[in-house]
Amino acid sequence: MKTLIDEAKTLRRTLHQYPEVGFTEMITTYLILKEVEDTSFTLYLGSDATDINAQMGRPSEAELLKACERAESFGVDKDTLDKIRNGETGIVAVLDTGVEGPHVGFRFDIDGLPITEAEKDSHIPFVEGFKSKHDGEMHACGHDAHASIGVALLKYIDTNKDELKGKYTIIFQAAEEGLRGANGYVQKGWLDTVDYFFTSHVGLVPLKVGTVNAKSKGFLSSKKFDVEFYGKSAHAGAEPNAGKNALLAASNAAVNLNAISRHRDGATRLNVGKLEAGSGRNVIPDYAFMMCEVRGEKDELTEYMYERAEAVIKGAALMYDCDYKIRLMGNASTAVCDDELVDVIKRATVNNSYITQLNEEGPAGGSEDATYMINRVQKNNGKATYMTFPYELKAGHHHPEFDVDEAVLGVAISTYIDIVNELNKD
Amino acid sequence: MKTLIDEAKTLRRTLHQYPEVGFTEMITTYLILKEVEDTSFTLYLGSDATDINAQMGRPSEAELLKACERAESFGVDKDTLDKIRNGETGIVAVLDTGVEGPHVGFRFDIDGLPITEAEKDSHIPFVEGFKSKHDGEMHACGHDAHASIGVALLKYIDTNKDELKGKYTIIFQAAEEGLRGANGYVQKGWLDTVDYFFTSHVGLVPLKVGTVNAKSKGFLSSKKFDVEFYGKSAHAGAEPNAGKNALLAASNAAVNLNAISRHRDGATRLNVGKLEAGSGRNVIPDYAFMMCEVRGEKDELTEYMYERAEAVIKGAALMYDCDYKIRLMGNASTAVCDDELVDVIKRATVNNSYITQLNEEGPAGGSEDATYMINRVQKNNGKATYMTFPYELKAGHHHPEFDVDEAVLGVAISTYIDIVNELNKD
Amino acid sequence: MKTLIDEAKTLRRTLHQYPEVGFTEMITTYLILKEVEDTSFTLYLGSDATDINAQMGRPSEAELLKACERAESFGVDKDTLDKIRNGETGIVAVLDTGVEGPHVGFRFDIDGLPITEAEKDSHIPFVEGFKSKHDGEMHACGHDAHASIGVALLKYIDTNKDELKGKYTIIFQAAEEGLRGANGYVQKGWLDTVDYFFTSHVGLVPLKVGTVNAKSKGFLSSKKFDVEFYGKSAHAGAEPNAGKNALLAASNAAVNLNAISRHRDGATRLNVGKLEAGSGRNVIPDYAFMMCEVRGEKDELTEYMYERAEAVIKGAALMYDCDYKIRLMGNASTAVCDDELVDVIKRATVNNSYITQLNEEGPAGGSEDATYMINRVQKNNGKATYMTFPYELKAGHHHPEFDVDEAVLGVAISTYIDIVNELNKD
Amino acid sequence: MKTLIDEAKTLRRTLHQYPEVGFTEMITTYLILKEVEDTSFTLYLGSDATDINAQMGRPSEAELLKACERAESFGVDKDTLDKIRNGETGIVAVLDTGVEGPHVGFRFDIDGLPITEAEKDSHIPFVEGFKSKHDGEMHACGHDAHASIGVALLKYIDTNKDELKGKYTIIFQAAEEGLRGANGYVQKGWLDTVDYFFTSHVGLVPLKVGTVNAKSKGFLSSKKFDVEFYGKSAHAGAEPNAGKNALLAASNAAVNLNAISRHRDGATRLNVGKLEAGSGRNVIPDYAFMMCEVRGEKDELTEYMYERAEAVIKGAALMYDCDYKIRLMGNASTAVCDDELVDVIKRATVNNSYITQLNEEGPAGGSEDATYMINRVQKNNGKATYMTFPYELKAGHHHPEFDVDEAVLGVAISTYIDIVNELNKD
Repeated sequence: MKTLIDEAKTLRRTLHQYPEVGFTEMITTYLILKEVEDTSFTLYLGSDATDINAQMGRPSEAELLKACERAESFGVDKDTLDKIRNGETGIVAVLDTGVEGPHVGFRFDIDGLPITEAEKDSHIPFVEGFKSKHDGEMHACGHDAHASIGVALLKYIDTNKDELKGKYTIIFQAAEEGLRGANGYVQKGWLDTVDYFFTSHVGLVPLKVGTVNAKSKGFLSSKKFDVEFYGKSAHAGAEPNAGKNALLAASNAAVNLNAISRHRDGATRLNVGKLEAGSGRNVIPDYAFMMCEVRGEKDELTEYMYERAEAVIKGAALMYDCDYKIRLMGNASTAVCDDELVDVIKRATVNNSYITQLNEEGPAGGSEDATYMINRVQKNNGKATYMTFPYELKAGHHHPEFDVDEAVLGVAISTYIDIVNELNKD
Repeated sequence: MKTLIDEAKTLRRTLHQYPEVGFTEMITTYLILKEVEDTSFTLYLGSDATDINAQMGRPSEAELLKACERAESFGVDKDTLDKIRNGETGIVAVLDTGVEGPHVGFRFDIDGLPITEAEKDSHIPFVEGFKSKHDGEMHACGHDAHASIGVALLKYIDTNKDELKGKYTIIFQAAEEGLRGANGYVQKGWLDTVDYFFTSHVGLVPLKVGTVNAKSKGFLSSKKFDVEFYGKSAHAGAEPNAGKNALLAASNAAVNLNAISRHRDGATRLNVGKLEAGSGRNVIPDYAFMMCEVRGEKDELTEYMYERAEAVIKGAALMYDCDYKIRLMGNASTAVCDDELVDVIKRATVNNSYITQLNEEGPAGGSEDATYMINRVQKNNGKATYMTFPYELKAGHHHPEFDVDEAVLGVAISTYIDIVNELNKD
Repeated sequence: MKTLIDEAKTLRRTLHQYPEVGFTEMITTYLILKEVEDTSFTLYLGSDATDINAQMGRPSEAELLKACERAESFGVDKDTLDKIRNGETGIVAVLDTGVEGPHVGFRFDIDGLPITEAEKDSHIPFVEGFKSKHDGEMHACGHDAHASIGVALLKYIDTNKDELKGKYTIIFQAAEEGLRGANGYVQKGWLDTVDYFFTSHVGLVPLKVGTVNAKSKGFLSSKKFDVEFYGKSAHAGAEPNAGKNALLAASNAAVNLNAISRHRDGATRLNVGKLEAGSGRNVIPDYAFMMCEVRGEKDELTEYMYERAEAVIKGAALMYDCDYKIRLMGNASTAVCDDELVDVIKRATVNNSYITQLNEEGPAGGSEDATYMINRVQKNNGKATYMTFPYELKAGHHHPEFDVDEAVLGVAISTYIDIVNELNKD
Repeated sequence: MKTLIDEAKTLRRTLHQYPEVGFTEMITTYLILKEVEDTSFTLYLGSDATDINAQMGRPSEAELLKACERAESFGVDKDTLDKIRNGETGIVAVLDTGVEGPHVGFRFDIDGLPITEAEKDSHIPFVEGFKSKHDGEMHACGHDAHASIGVALLKYIDTNKDELKGKYTIIFQAAEEGLRGANGYVQKGWLDTVDYFFTSHVGLVPLKVGTVNAKSKGFLSSKKFDVEFYGKSAHAGAEPNAGKNALLAASNAAVNLNAISRHRDGATRLNVGKLEAGSGRNVIPDYAFMMCEVRGEKDELTEYMYERAEAVIKGAALMYDCDYKIRLMGNASTAVCDDELVDVIKRATVNNSYITQLNEEGPAGGSEDATYMINRVQKNNGKATYMTFPYELKAGHHHPEFDVDEAVLGVAISTYIDIVNELNKD
């Protein structure tokens, strides 16, 4: 166990230096691959692992190409790169013991964020020399830890496979940020026969390290979407009537999106986070772009907001004789964890010395696309939970000074191993 | 001539006491009828005179009924009333001399305005006891004078019919205000064979009485329209999401109608003159009503504004999931008068002692639906003009203290008679 | 008890025929007065009872005059009328037993609604001949029953005054609808020394008659306000630039009021229930009027909405160079009932045969201005509760077919009497 | 003459390779300086030539620095660079003959545009190897020709100074594009004593080369301005109420700027050419930026639009509790050329063999900041004109394939020389 945890710490520090945003985790995928390719797990990459058509908010060709070149420079072999260069990053690792038993699924997300890491003496990755080497990208949400925990779990299962029964599927998921990646794996069917599903997040709640929340509640449903308005430019002084003003279509849409009515059944949200329109001062703007999101306490509320948003956007476009396009960029449901797994975790960790406090439930950290997986497992009568492994956060998630208390690695890895063993008992 | 002018003055003062807004000129029609029914002119009333389907901005059934009851109380006979009770008011009077000659058309508008007449010692109709007897209605644009001039002209032609050649059509037109009535007569075909067409307005420009402007320029094209938005009400506190907010559809439409782009080719106008929406404070508004107008220096500019307005209204309705209806309430084209008739008028009035100044051209007073008639005559190769007979206005048109300098009656009647005689010369 | 209930039923049917909207309850006040003037209670009317400056959403002078004339026709004596003709309607009745004991306060609201009562065979007031005699006004919320219950309670206390201790204040409150009347009595100080305060509503929840909810939760805080925009008119065709467009100020305000952001801390509401702007089609609108309301789960949320609304309105006025005025028309706080009184009610009604089910808590019916009184009592360390007496509603509150199941009178009257007796025990 | 024209052609081709946008014309200034420094003209640079406080739409420090470094690499000497590195580019050249006579002023603008030059076989600068060497910058409006014509004129005057009388001021003006530079020289006083002022543009109208329009009409008055809104960011899901939404302030401003009323007195224009707001999808936008312009047929109309725009922007900011800043980025008046100078040009060019057609008047090409200079000269009773030297344009001004027909150089230079000689006659 000690070795596993030490290796996880080392791996986490390596991954931390190569953060890659969603669907460009080419170095990350490669580094994980190197760790696990000599095990008995069957490894699936690229289109074998995920369904590109179910990915949302994919990067541009140019961004993929740039990531690819960076991965090449890093030394990722051509063979691996060819499988994932289209953004089908991540790995699915499967081991069937051949012995009858449950199918247990795990998911670890692996992507970084478009944030520039802090260079302060209070920031350990900077001081100890394992800060991000990718300008403008950072592991500011702890997914480097997640990936490392997943690798440790995989190794444990591999080492002990002869004493284990049933089947194990471990998903190293791309692009959790923006709620864009999970659905690709779900559509590929990996969750369809899973009996027990576990996933988790480090941090989130500022509690003493050693605390485990066995399930989470309060997942916000959300839809992220981009809007484009296509008008027609014209000289604003000479022939303004010849234009179709995309900027005005967008401006009206922005205001009226915010005016979508509150809903009887609970809290909703809407934001137009970005609006860019027009080119030159004296040209009727022929193009506008908006980044939007809606949220709801329940899926139905998010759907209500999204449907109303579609009408507003269509109406605004029509007002100014513009065409428009709405592109779904991210999506997450709410989800409800299963109490049965809380019991499993309780029984499993009864002798775990890394854990100082086991809570039945903690808060979910907003929106999460693991909910896709949870819902799919439950749809097929499986059980699922989303654990959290808190520690005293020095800075919030998505902050340039965010850091992981590495003591949490031991708590998480031991908990996962306990679970595997507990499920093997019956 | 003197007698004709005196009679016109008397008739004008009678008509002034019974102003009736467009399409409710039932007493007015009756009073004119009484003046001209014993002549040789063939008189057309009701659906024989005008096409109800080409009328715009018609009053409600209730308003027509009320006007009808008032006319009955006044003493209008049932026979006449039956012909005009549906708002097909006005008279077309035709006399064919049987002698070959030109077909000459004249048009005099007869409607009042929804304005309460002033009761001031400086206001002659009040002082001399011939103020409006209809509360809230007033001849504040001089159409009482117009009708009287037309009656005098008709009598002159009738008296002298044996010395005249050709054919005479005199239209006493309903509902010029709001540009609603002219088209009914045009669609009926009265203008189709007219060779020379004359119409006119008293006042408009504050010049010495005795001035005649032989033609007019600057008619503004215009479209008047009402808009209704139909939404769905809901309790604003309990279930706001269930509503479809017609007030917000209308508010967005109002703002964006005003934002319709200027046009390269000339001046345009738009106004939302009235907006009424909603019922109770705590009810999502399910209905909204707007009164709008667009204008343009040229017909194409008015069309541009109207088409853009339609798109804005449709888009605004869509934004809030509302239905909508646009109803055309008035319409006027631009028109260009014929120089040939300026020459006719010049020659005709060379010895006219009522005229002190003959100008070739004066300004048109904004929008006018006589333009419908002018355009129709010209389409069939006839010639047309719109004269003005100015006087020193004490108060502007549509003002509660507007009044006609009755000296203008002599100027106008003598001019029309001169024209008839001039056209009879060749 | 039986007699009291029968008399209450008779009084309720009389009051039902003379519904009067808030601040015009002149006949209602008179009818209650006649019932209670021969008791030992000291009666306060007009400016002795309420503070006119603390009333909100008062009717116009014309409306007060009309109500006054109606009351005169009904036979209300001049003396009484003089006290209440300014809209200071309602009665405060006080009885001090002279024996040391608690000060107990009660409040019964007495106003009707601007709704036309249904004439259907399924509607008992119509069938049994006690339908509203006031066109367009109706007791559609059961305040006729409330007043009758109050009168019965007053009579009981009066009859038994010799066995009672402490002091009793009974408020027959005007203008609960719109949350406009309560504050007038509060500012007068009637609640300042009250130890126990009880008020209630019949209906609200469709439960079996015989049910009592001893307290209520979920009062929505609310602010009602009117907005006026003052611009400048101008001819829309001739000189549009000279106008200051109040309609556009209002339209922008309406849209952006609806766009006020959701709040982290709970549910909020906003509605622009009515917008009226402009006069003629071709006139730049110089005036606009809006009826608005905001609500919140907590007072702070309502304040947040109101403050944001003020900024939006000011900004919209500024955009179009208009002046504006905001007038507060109604106001209600949230309130929390006291558990101590639930206990009192439980103990009091232990042998009450009219009650079949006593619940500790039921839902409040939205916004209520009794909350003003509850909060004032509690501020001075008194205890307060808002009970509900449900029955199976045939039609919702504020509906033309709303009716009171008169069996509820017995439940309510007996409960109030039990409370009086219980508080007299110690 | 032939030599002068050939040298001008060479200089034009050199300048064409080093286009620099407004206030960064450091190489351009240097190249002109090299051409004229050995003449008898006194040369003024930097703060001796222009008033930095009267410049509008200045580049950022970073942009100036970059231009400066480029100029250094090019070989501009430190001495010259130090004078102009702050964007005080351009040269004023003055020669006083010492003989009594008129003060004649000339102005030639020298800046390029932020346009990438075409690389097509039909584009002469590309084919003949003198295409722009500055990526993203291009002489796409012919100011390279203007500068060359000015240099030729200067040399002519210098060569013939002994036969000339009066005083000559030649302004090589920075930053005409965007209407930003002229005012700097005006405020410095260079135009205050000018008796005759001449400036011109090549191209503009597609007429045969050899045509000269002696004056221009139709200068549009214009104001260019940038707007910034400063709000406050907040997490759109977690605490939306804490934000101050700059994007919504800007969106409302954009719509309502377009809704500024038409003006009675003539054509107006408004455009929001660019709007950029917000950062991340889930962040309430705390910043928005807009690029705007207004225009009018008369200065008063532009002022009307600008004043209304200020009110709209202020109101929109207030609605969303944002701060804002409006920055004037460019400004041009209308101007009326003097007929006296048309006569001068007619007389002057009577034997000019380069000219095939002399028109009294041609259209101005929209807005021009030479109007500042024209108005200043006329204010002090001088006479001024703006000539155009048309040729058959292959591509419009500001187009990547715009090119100058170099035959126009001869037409322009000979005309200017003729003017000098004509004014020397009396």
